[in-house]
This record gives sequence, structure tokens and C-alpha cells, in this order.
Amino acid sequence: MVERTLESVICSDVAPAYEISMHLLSAGGKRIRPSLMVLSALASGECDPGRMVNLAVAAELVHMASLVHDDVVDETRERRGARTASESWGNKISVLGGDYLLSRAFCILSTDGSPEILRALSATAVAMTESEILQASGEGDLSVWEANYWRIIHGKTAEFMGACCECGAFLTGADSQTRQSLREYGVQLGLAFQITDDVLDIVGNRAHTGKETGTDLAHGKFTLPVLLALTEADEDGSLRGMLANGRLTASEAEEVAARVIESGSVDTARLAAVDRADAAIKQLSDMPRSEYTDALTALAGSVISREG
Amino acid sequence: MVERTLESVICSDVAPAYEISMHLLSAGGKRIRPSLMVLSALASGECDPGRMVNLAVAAELVHMASLVHDDVVDETRERRGARTASESWGNKISVLGGDYLLSRAFCILSTDGSPEILRALSATAVAMTESEILQASGEGDLSVWEANYWRIIHGKTAEFMGACCECGAFLTGADSQTRQSLREYGVQLGLAFQITDDVLDIVGNRAHTGKETGTDLAHGKFTLPVLLALTEADEDGSLRGMLANGRLTASEAEEVAARVIESGSVDTARLAAVDRADAAIKQLSDMPRSEYTDALTALAGSVISREG
Repeated sequence: MVERTLESVICSDVAPAYEISMHLLSAGGKRIRPSLMVLSALASGECDPGRMVNLAVAAELVHMASLVHDDVVDETRERRGARTASESWGNKISVLGGDYLLSRAFCILSTDGSPEILRALSATAVAMTESEILQASGEGDLSVWEANYWRIIHGKTAEFMGACCECGAFLTGADSQTRQSLREYGVQLGLAFQITDDVLDIVGNRAHTGKETGTDLAHGKFTLPVLLALTEADEDGSLRGMLANGRLTASEAEEVAARVIESGSVDTARLAAVDRADAAIKQLSDMPRSEYTDALTALAGSVISREG
Repeated sequence: MVERTLESVICSDVAPAYEISMHLLSAGGKRIRPSLMVLSALASGECDPGRMVNLAVAAELVHMASLVHDDVVDETRERRGARTASESWGNKISVLGGDYLLSRAFCILSTDGSPEILRALSATAVAMTESEILQASGEGDLSVWEANYWRIIHGKTAEFMGACCECGAFLTGADSQTRQSLREYGVQLGLAFQITDDVLDIVGNRAHTGKETGTDLAHGKFTLPVLLALTEADEDGSLRGMLANGRLTASEAEEVAARVIESGSVDTARLAAVDRADAAIKQLSDMPRSEYTDALTALAGSVISREG
């Protein structure tokens, strides 16, 4: 139902608005945010299914909008094995296309949301953009990443996933303890998800991830595996020296990735993701067990074991 | 109060988010949208002043967000006599900076808005982005402009100004007749405003407008004065021929502007703006006269007589 509703809400008689939206939609995606919202609602009580689906769609649209703008910002050419919108339509239509999707999302939220849901998701949108700006302004600047890595991944990924879970609980009128647990489940799952993303950028198989590896390094984004290697396996400062110049060429990125893998920091980062997934699952322990809490548990597992 | 609140809501501990927002804010602007919302509220009844100011701020933030993205999209280097954000911070931070301002606006709307206000403004945001996409996809394509000029200026300017007025009336709980009149006042004022903008791009004085003239033509945006010249003073098709190639060089744009001015179409377009301003003022006739309706009347006059 989420998939069908996604297709219907992006309809526009302005051809490029519709085409760019359909392109994004048909490229697929894991649909983690709508899944989190729907499963959190079903796990915490009862609600109107139509409203639940619409709000799950709004969450995915907010995410899609951020992806389009990310691809413009990062000059990404490929995502999920397909050309990015910015590569196909150019930056101009892509910037506006992202705005279109975000506006559509707020249209749905203003009809099917509640004040709490609107507040949760719009506060999350502010945190997301702040983190993206921090990330963009810190490209190639190791000190920014050392000081802000956790804030960045909290803001750009974890808070949003937490808000999706919390909004699912708002929909069913769940008590504040349940809302809080589900939110924290989503935040921890989001951290596990993002750390795994950061690991896959270094060791990932292009056939599975659908995007080039090493792009974070090439863009001067220094994520957890790299930061761990710096603190745990760089006594002579040679790795730090390689990162001091900011953006890396493809061959430099390859060399850094090899150093990071060799240092064992990728495994340490993977363990950090496992810890977060465990912390997420622990949040579910006070809730009545159901096929929905089981699905949330399974989701936390799949987020860290995925290869793409 | 709007100005002070604007300054306080854009606060962010992420330096570039704050800097880019302050840059936009201190560049000034006519603040027409918050004026429309505040005057419409005051003209139609009583409401909580704090809430009114906050919502007026949200309207200006939505507008500022669209300006930042417009400047990225159009590669504008100067606005209101100052460097644009995209020129100072680059496209990357500017795309995200626009997203930041839009998210801040929805944060305020989700706290101080009502379902009607949220629906009106988010539907307007969809129409705005659709029109911007239509405009971007039609750059240099005369047939798009001939078929869609009114839709484009309705969507990108007029509907938003109408929604600001309507939301002012929602705030005071005005009856549907008053809401409708104020909305239509705003729509007509918006059309008058945009036509005047389009005229100023051709005949404007850079010292007053704060931006280069002829940029619409250079970007292949064929607005009312040009469209009128084509239908009223281009028997031999030579003007159409000049526009057939799409984007124009600076000297070609100058030549087209001279042709359009010489044809009398700039004056005809100015008259169309006067008609719209009159239609706007007429909408106020059934409302009780006050200093606020007088201010709205004066605003409609100043929108068409401005030189920048």
C-alpha cells in the first residue's frame, strides 16, 4: 500500500516534476523509514490504516527529497545502480525536484498528521539539514569529523529513524514510555545503519551497494572506520598525514581504505554497529511481543548484516 | 517584531547554517509576504499577536528558502545589490541552506499553525515548486512560455501571496467570504507584483533593483512584455526568430529588450499590472474600512509603482 500510494501522490501534470519523482521511486530503495513507522504503529496499538500508510509515504518522500539534494551536493552520478536524478536532469531540476517532494510530504503531513507528528518530523528535518551543512562544511577537514562524527550521523540518519518510530506510536496513541522506547529503538537502529553505510563505503561490493566505493574518502568525509584507525593504529601519524590534504584522489582513497582495513578498524566499526543494533533490540523488551516487534528485531539484525 | 523574530529563529550552532541565513536576512527585502499576513489578520479581526508574528516569519522563511534555491538554479551572482549566497558559500551549502530555512519554517508552522494554515501553505509550496520546475524546463523554449506564462506566475508568486492573506484571515477566524476576498486580493496583488518584476527586468535601473537587467532574457525566460510584443508587434516574425535559439547573449538580450520597449509592449504589460492591482483593491471593498485595509490598498499601489 505504501508503494502504490507513493506512486499516486507524486503525480503532477508538470512532466519533469513527475518524471524525476518516478525515476527516484522506480530506482527502489530499502523503504526503511516507512517500514519503521508502520511496524512501530502496528507494534504499539491500533490506528487508521489509511492514515498510517499516508504518513509512512510522507516519511519516505522526506527521505527521497534529501537523497536528491545530497546527490546534487555530492555530485553523485550513480545510486542504487542507476544514474542519479542530477546526472539525468541536471542540478537545476534536481534542486527543485527535491523541493517538490518535500512540499508533497508536508502536504500529506498537514492533512494526515497531528501537531505532535508535525513537530517531531519538522524538528527532525531541521536537525537533518544542520548535520548535512556541518558535513558539507567539514569536507576534507579532519578536525570537523573528529569533533562531530556522532552528531552528524545522529542528525542526518538516526534522529529521523527515531522520529519515524515515535510517529508510529503517536498514531496509535501509545503511552509515553512506549513512544520513548520506540524512538530510542529507531535512533539506535539509525546509528547502526549509518555506521554500516560508512563501513560499506570502504569495503563494499559495488554490485551490492549500487554505488562506487571510496566516495566518502574522495569527498573528504572521514567516518568511523577511518577515525578509529587514526586513534588505534596510526602511531607514526602517517595515516593522519595522508588525510591532511582533504579530498583524496581515487588512488589515494584506495590506499587509505587499504590501511584502514589492515588496521582492523573496519571490524571495530562493525562491532560498534552490532552494539547499536543490540541496544535497539533491547528497547523492545518491555513491549508485548508480537509479529511486529519480531519484525523490528529482525530489521535491526538485517541493517547491520546487509551488503548494500 | 517580525524582523527581530526572524533573527532569533534562524539561530544555529552550525556556523554556516547561521551565517548563510544571516546573510540573506541582512540583505533585506521588501517583506511583502509577512506584511500581507499581518495586515490581513489585523484587517479581518483579532488574534494572538505572538502567533501572528511567528507565522509571518514562517512565510518569509519559505520565501527566503525559495530565493536561495532560485539563485543556485539560475546561477545568480547578485541580489539586492549584494552577492548571493550561492556566490559566497557555493551551491552545496546553499542547497542545504535553503532546506534549512524551509525546515525551520515548517517547525514554526507545526507549533503555531492550524490544520487550515498548514494545508494552505503546503499546497502553495507544491504549486511553487511545480511552477519553478515548469519554468526551469522551459528555459529557452518559447512555446512553453506562450502556453504557461500565467500558470507560472500564478504558481511561483500569486498563489503564495494569496495564501499569506488567507492565513492571516484564518488566524482571526474570519468568515469564509472575508477569507476568500483576502485570498483573491493577495492573488491579484501577486500577479501585479510579478508582472512588474518582469517589466523591471527589461527596463529596470540596476541601482534600484539591485540586480542585473536582462537576466530573464539571457536565461531564456520569456515574460509578458516579450510575449505581448510577439503577438502585437512582430508581423514579420523577426522577433520570434531572435528568440528561437533559446538563451540569448547579453548583446542579443539588449537588442530584444530594445525591440520590446519600442513596440510599446512594456507599457501594455504595465497596464496589465495596474488592472491586477485594481482588481486586488476591489476585493477589499466589502470589508470594513480601517487603517489596515488602507495599508493593503496602498501596498497594491506601491507594488506596481516600485522601481526595484
